[in-house]
Amino acid sequence: MQLLKDRILKDGVVKPGNILKVDSFLNHQMDILLMNEIGKEFKARFSDCPITKILTIEASGIGIAAITAQYFDVNMVFAKKAQSLNLDGEMLVTKVESFTHKKVYDVILAKKFLSPEDHVLIIDDFLANGCALLGLIDLVQNAGATIEGAGIVIEKGFQDGGRKIRDMGIRLESLAIIDSMTDDSLTFR
Amino acid sequence: MQLLKDRILKDGVVKPGNILKVDSFLNHQMDILLMNEIGKEFKARFSDCPITKILTIEASGIGIAAITAQYFDVNMVFAKKAQSLNLDGEMLVTKVESFTHKKVYDVILAKKFLSPEDHVLIIDDFLANGCALLGLIDLVQNAGATIEGAGIVIEKGFQDGGRKIRDMGIRLESLAIIDSMTDDSLTFR
Repeated sequence: MQLLKDRILKDGVVKPGNILKVDSFLNHQMDILLMNEIGKEFKARFSDCPITKILTIEASGIGIAAITAQYFDVNMVFAKKAQSLNLDGEMLVTKVESFTHKKVYDVILAKKFLSPEDHVLIIDDFLANGCALLGLIDLVQNAGATIEGAGIVIEKGFQDGGRKIRDMGIRLESLAIIDSMTDDSLTFR
Repeated sequence: MQLLKDRILKDGVVKPGNILKVDSFLNHQMDILLMNEIGKEFKARFSDCPITKILTIEASGIGIAAITAQYFDVNMVFAKKAQSLNLDGEMLVTKVESFTHKKVYDVILAKKFLSPEDHVLIIDDFLANGCALLGLIDLVQNAGATIEGAGIVIEKGFQDGGRKIRDMGIRLESLAIIDSMTDDSLTFR
């Protein structure tokens, strides 16, 4: 997606530890016009799929998933990263290791929001080692629902998450795949 | 907002401890059509204000704020609840006590995303004792920006957050204000 790649080149900042900061338009401040174009692009790429629900994980995926859900005319549900006092009823639970925060946490989703009849599109802002996405895939499979695919805004192609997901036979559409990045250069696939 | 009140009566569940569960349409699963109507309603109520930015706090405010930002044609920024390894630069910080989780946490926002020229509309899903909203107000004031008002989806009118905010002279628009709730009845203001 050229608009996104141009924006990453213009406003993205590479930090030590293979961190790409895109907080000015994607995951702290959100450029709503760009989010709309991203939502339309996901709809175009998955227009042949009978999507009934968009799934993401808190926190930074929520805005993109909500905007994207508009273009599919379906509801969105977000998995939560820790036990909340306000959750009850039957829960789907999986464990996810955070690359950024170096810890393992529980990811939970109320079972009633994913049924075996659902055709799910998973949306997230980043894909690196794939732990969060693998956790979401596990939740969908535990619910007995169908995974139609995953839509990612930025994939770090030099980490192995993308390969793992594609090797599972899951359709993965990343709007920008970065194959290498250094302080002064960034190469897209 | 009648559509919202009808939905609360239809799908909201009252739990012990003055908890109102609206996870089927607002803060776990999001009904995107309803979110769009909520966004339009906030735009209608603040149409006289020169809003330049929407501010919310992670996690459940993000979806509503993103959808709402579309109707104002402005960007959205969300405050974060804990120090992230990917944040740097100058930060605005405030402390917020969570009613739900019974703990105090830091809320942070990169200073570069709020300037003295900004006219800010704060958006959140719930207002109860007002701690989260007071924290966001503190962040806006520390940035030297102008608070145009706060838009809340559900205000618990029997807790004192709404009164505190209105007593500060801040324009507060809550789309549904609940004055009392028990297991089998719920009264709107």
